[in-house]
Amino acid sequence: MDPSHLKEPIDVLEDGLSFLRLVEYIGDDWSVVSSARVSFGQGRKTDEEDTRLIRYLMLHDHMSPFEHIVFKFHVSCPMFIRNQWFRHRTWSYNEISRRYTSKNIVFYIPERFRKQDLDNKQGSVFSDEINNDIARNTVKRHGELALTTYNNLLEMGIAREHARMVLPQNMYTEFYATVNLRNLLHFVKLRITPEAQWEIRQYAKAILDILEQTVPISLDAFKEKHGLK
Amino acid sequence: MDPSHLKEPIDVLEDGLSFLRLVEYIGDDWSVVSSARVSFGQGRKTDEEDTRLIRYLMLHDHMSPFEHIVFKFHVSCPMFIRNQWFRHRTWSYNEISRRYTSKNIVFYIPERFRKQDLDNKQGSVFSDEINNDIARNTVKRHGELALTTYNNLLEMGIAREHARMVLPQNMYTEFYATVNLRNLLHFVKLRITPEAQWEIRQYAKAILDILEQTVPISLDAFKEKHGLK
Amino acid sequence: MDPSHLKEPIDVLEDGLSFLRLVEYIGDDWSVVSSARVSFGQGRKTDEEDTRLIRYLMLHDHMSPFEHIVFKFHVSCPMFIRNQWFRHRTWSYNEISRRYTSKNIVFYIPERFRKQDLDNKQGSVFSDEINNDIARNTVKRHGELALTTYNNLLEMGIAREHARMVLPQNMYTEFYATVNLRNLLHFVKLRITPEAQWEIRQYAKAILDILEQTVPISLDAFKEKHGLK
Amino acid sequence: MDPSHLKEPIDVLEDGLSFLRLVEYIGDDWSVVSSARVSFGQGRKTDEEDTRLIRYLMLHDHMSPFEHIVFKFHVSCPMFIRNQWFRHRTWSYNEISRRYTSKNIVFYIPERFRKQDLDNKQGSVFSDEINNDIARNTVKRHGELALTTYNNLLEMGIAREHARMVLPQNMYTEFYATVNLRNLLHFVKLRITPEAQWEIRQYAKAILDILEQTVPISLDAFKEKHGLK
Repeated sequence: MDPSHLKEPIDVLEDGLSFLRLVEYIGDDWSVVSSARVSFGQGRKTDEEDTRLIRYLMLHDHMSPFEHIVFKFHVSCPMFIRNQWFRHRTWSYNEISRRYTSKNIVFYIPERFRKQDLDNKQGSVFSDEINNDIARNTVKRHGELALTTYNNLLEMGIAREHARMVLPQNMYTEFYATVNLRNLLHFVKLRITPEAQWEIRQYAKAILDILEQTVPISLDAFKEKHGLK
Repeated sequence: MDPSHLKEPIDVLEDGLSFLRLVEYIGDDWSVVSSARVSFGQGRKTDEEDTRLIRYLMLHDHMSPFEHIVFKFHVSCPMFIRNQWFRHRTWSYNEISRRYTSKNIVFYIPERFRKQDLDNKQGSVFSDEINNDIARNTVKRHGELALTTYNNLLEMGIAREHARMVLPQNMYTEFYATVNLRNLLHFVKLRITPEAQWEIRQYAKAILDILEQTVPISLDAFKEKHGLK
Repeated sequence: MDPSHLKEPIDVLEDGLSFLRLVEYIGDDWSVVSSARVSFGQGRKTDEEDTRLIRYLMLHDHMSPFEHIVFKFHVSCPMFIRNQWFRHRTWSYNEISRRYTSKNIVFYIPERFRKQDLDNKQGSVFSDEINNDIARNTVKRHGELALTTYNNLLEMGIAREHARMVLPQNMYTEFYATVNLRNLLHFVKLRITPEAQWEIRQYAKAILDILEQTVPISLDAFKEKHGLK
Repeated sequence: MDPSHLKEPIDVLEDGLSFLRLVEYIGDDWSVVSSARVSFGQGRKTDEEDTRLIRYLMLHDHMSPFEHIVFKFHVSCPMFIRNQWFRHRTWSYNEISRRYTSKNIVFYIPERFRKQDLDNKQGSVFSDEINNDIARNTVKRHGELALTTYNNLLEMGIAREHARMVLPQNMYTEFYATVNLRNLLHFVKLRITPEAQWEIRQYAKAILDILEQTVPISLDAFKEKHGLK
């Protein structure tokens, strides 16, 4: 494991604007073990026994030992993804505020748009029926227009906190987010399913990659539990 | 106290679109007392002694007895206010989803815009220097345009969850929100100060009015504690 | 449903000292529905459709609509059960404090003791091999002795908060506890299994009875989900 | 700063049985700064400016940037202190379970007992009026007796989870506890005051020492805010 590699930003949506970056973390698979074994008045044993214990805890939903491993991320994502993300109330967040700054306003333009899924009211599917060039141009032009309107309002002397109301929800936002492994796995579970919006699934996948390198045994048990293998 | 009056929606931003509505609540000032006195193995005493106890608890920051009074609200507010609101992680929320429905999309157009406060980077002040007619027209036209673009994207077959990304942050959203009195007072404390954005302060004031009618003694002690009288 | 019946204390451990009492609650099955349907911009439909929605939400783990129903209990239980209970961090608690009062100290004496389960390190089973009369007498005498020692320490002028350290963990304690339906169901799920200690299972069963009378449709879906029918 | 020194167990109650041990932590004063400055779309500046920002955040109660620093402790303390500690619901805990093990049962015997404070119903004061030798002997003998009774019950075949009910509350327990800096400071604030029980104040002081060595600037601002300098 190369830690410098582990902490490089991942361009989650592959547009040069999105990123997920692991800032720091504490704990590893063996922290789960030592936290769990305090119940028995014991510590670590052999790797094999410890691996078995992690699997047992995960599969029997004894999740408290997974709370002592903590991850801190730095994230750049569109506002509509941020809104889904911040519904998770067990994380700690600090976000860029459009009350403070009017700089670096950029927008997410999907490479490929998705069609409404007619079987699933909240879902969508990739489809050749969509003309992506036209769609991309429409969204791009709308972003430029919104930015112009925003700047016009600022020039009229209007406060940033008021002017921002015209900015669309594909505007990028940026935040720090800290969470323990138990709640991070809950996030991944909910956001990696086919029912989740494609964009947030990409973030969940990037997190999964990081977990694969930091807590491989816990992650393996998690994947088995939720049929993700 | 007329309960039917208490549960009527309040048009917080006075535009016929915003509202705060008390759906239901449990507990009152005397619930604080009986919860607190369980510590002493005692229950209620005289109104005077009970009032004194509530003041003592509030002023000495013994807030756990205030957690047993619970309020459920139904709220309609602009997205940029919702984003401030949902930063409070101790509430329970259920919100309208633009992945499910494309109906009833309306926008907040301020009656009076505010100027950037030059002393306070995040703040704003009402000012005669702003031409409100021009500003209102600019924001109104931008909303119409965004809605047109949104509908165009839907007509191209694009999924609601994708098309919504062009909708601006003054779009109204709607949610149910449940919280206990301790955390509700924390919300009011943070959101009623002059540093808070004017719009969310109006919601904090509406909540204060409801608390005045439901937990008057607790509220009085709260106001004294935070210099709000 | 007779509400006065619903709020009568239940003698959970059948010793005249334990109790679980529903103090108050807000919401019912239809609150789940209206909170969930705000996502679609809709409200209640027919009872049949609403029942189907509740089952769908429960079985697909969409638990946020269950957070708007809130229960407040008054509980008397042995300290060792209280310690298991207070591990649930999503409840609000106020408890009798032995720093404040030295009155009404009573102890839990099991009617029937359980044998160590040799297959399950943390478990126990009822067994005819145990001489319950001897065991009851042993525990009863120990309680009397601890109380005498406690009173001796008080008479020596020692502070209540210090003297209490000799009191055993079968001492009864009393508390108010408020929780929403989502977290209450989580408590029931964890504490009603055969792995849970027999005493706390009795409290979980008493809660189940109350839920049967207050949110029957939600409870039915919960039981189906967790194989409790 | 010598990290190995930092992670040595501290014998908080000076009896050779109690300890507080820092297991690991992430973040430092500058993590507060970088998390806070994401709001402005900025990062770190000079040490002087960054120190000023930390003080500003602390004194104006902008506590979210302090949530990204996380500490993990290993604690040994008497049960009656553990019960006060676990009232803090924002921590993650794993504790030794007397359902699993009957080993290493030891008791806290205070060096000096405290007298009931007649002005303060929950408080106590050190006093020459107490005969500490007699009190220590009383508590020591009671512990031995409780342990004998416990072992008798085990020999009768009674389950550990049942037999433990005779064990007094000065029995030592052991746990892992993880918490972020914001909530850790809240714990210190509540548990370091003269109203807190003397024993838990010693733990709060030990934590303060650790914070002095890990986040000195944040701690300095905290002490100023709460008059602890």
